[in-house]
Amino acid sequence: MCDTCGCQLHEHHHHDAKVVEVNRSLLEANRKQADSNRHHIEHMGAVAINLISSPGSGKTTLLERTIEALKETVRIGVIEGDIETERDADRIRAKGVPAVQLTTGGACHLDAPMVHSGLHVLEHFAKDGLDLIFIENVGNLVCPATFDLGEHRRVVLLSTPEGSDKPAKYPATFRGADLVLITKTDLLPYFDFSVDEATRETRLLKPDQAILALSATTGDGFDAWLAYLRQLLPR
Amino acid sequence: MCDTCGCQLHEHHHHDAKVVEVNRSLLEANRKQADSNRHHIEHMGAVAINLISSPGSGKTTLLERTIEALKETVRIGVIEGDIETERDADRIRAKGVPAVQLTTGGACHLDAPMVHSGLHVLEHFAKDGLDLIFIENVGNLVCPATFDLGEHRRVVLLSTPEGSDKPAKYPATFRGADLVLITKTDLLPYFDFSVDEATRETRLLKPDQAILALSATTGDGFDAWLAYLRQLLPR
Repeated sequence: MCDTCGCQLHEHHHHDAKVVEVNRSLLEANRKQADSNRHHIEHMGAVAINLISSPGSGKTTLLERTIEALKETVRIGVIEGDIETERDADRIRAKGVPAVQLTTGGACHLDAPMVHSGLHVLEHFAKDGLDLIFIENVGNLVCPATFDLGEHRRVVLLSTPEGSDKPAKYPATFRGADLVLITKTDLLPYFDFSVDEATRETRLLKPDQAILALSATTGDGFDAWLAYLRQLLPR
Repeated sequence: MCDTCGCQLHEHHHHDAKVVEVNRSLLEANRKQADSNRHHIEHMGAVAINLISSPGSGKTTLLERTIEALKETVRIGVIEGDIETERDADRIRAKGVPAVQLTTGGACHLDAPMVHSGLHVLEHFAKDGLDLIFIENVGNLVCPATFDLGEHRRVVLLSTPEGSDKPAKYPATFRGADLVLITKTDLLPYFDFSVDEATRETRLLKPDQAILALSATTGDGFDAWLAYLRQLLPR
């Protein structure tokens, strides 16, 4: 009991038994749908990558340059997740590849059922088939970590303006990454960001973490990213 | 029914009736505790500011410089919210003011009950009383928008590296702001960010939105921010 204002000290709501129960059944349903999505994508002969980062870390810009580099040889499709607006899908379509915009209407992450719907729409527009599907999650460094979307690889972006302390502050997200991609390296001269420190912090969470650093503006480091993608492709 | 993988198209889980019901009771409990927190803070003779932004938008750096500028004349205390780590509270304590670190253990936002606990700890360390309490929320541009913490003003930061499209993409968060603070203006030469465009986008959501722009590195625009804070102080 608080003696200043008279109110009770509460347990944090995430510990509430009813909430835990509902969340467990949601996550179980999500997991099943994610497995189904993965089969669906493999049946299409494609691989899928779930891109996770804070707002403004450069996910869409990364995709624009990646599409420019690969679109002559790789059939790419994109599922865009945002709370509102079609802007990111419009940017991707302007590069000449099919893009589906999912708007969550408030939710801070995509989930597997949403992505399933998106896959159907994407297939409809990708008449010639797909090799590589990017799923750009809602800009958020917390919520997307909990939801498997049916991807084959999960890539977490960390942009240099955000600071190299972010892996320690968002450990579940960084621990869940198959690849950590340090972006906007062209801005390193202007920030107190150390790629070495970010690498060290990331590997404290997961000693064998794959890490690449690049700039989608200058193209520096981009070849290694493209090579990473190419080795994932079927055949 | 999906004819590729055989699974059902689901409604998004946020529409599930049971979840909506649980969320409603959580938010109602949060609202009551927030009102109680506000009374608690006013009883202390202080005002509280809830700082919301993406990870790495410069909340802690803003606080460091604000404390340096005001600490001789204003008694400041800080409640820091993070998923994990005590790092931000350590940075604030190094400036010579009391700071309490709340770690949410996974949750993407602070809530009013957590802040209530934080207030009690903060009072314990602030022997001489407090005029101004900053609550630095978890770095997240979505979840914190829904939770009143008992603050008197809500300040949403938008840093220039994030891009001026963010108000349109995170409308609930920006609409809920009492002040939008554009940060890292020293980086404007290096980014495709327009303060005019960000202002226009923000005021499309809320025509009378208060907006300030500053750099905590160079101090540019800082006087207007300090004036904004001073006019909130009691007496």
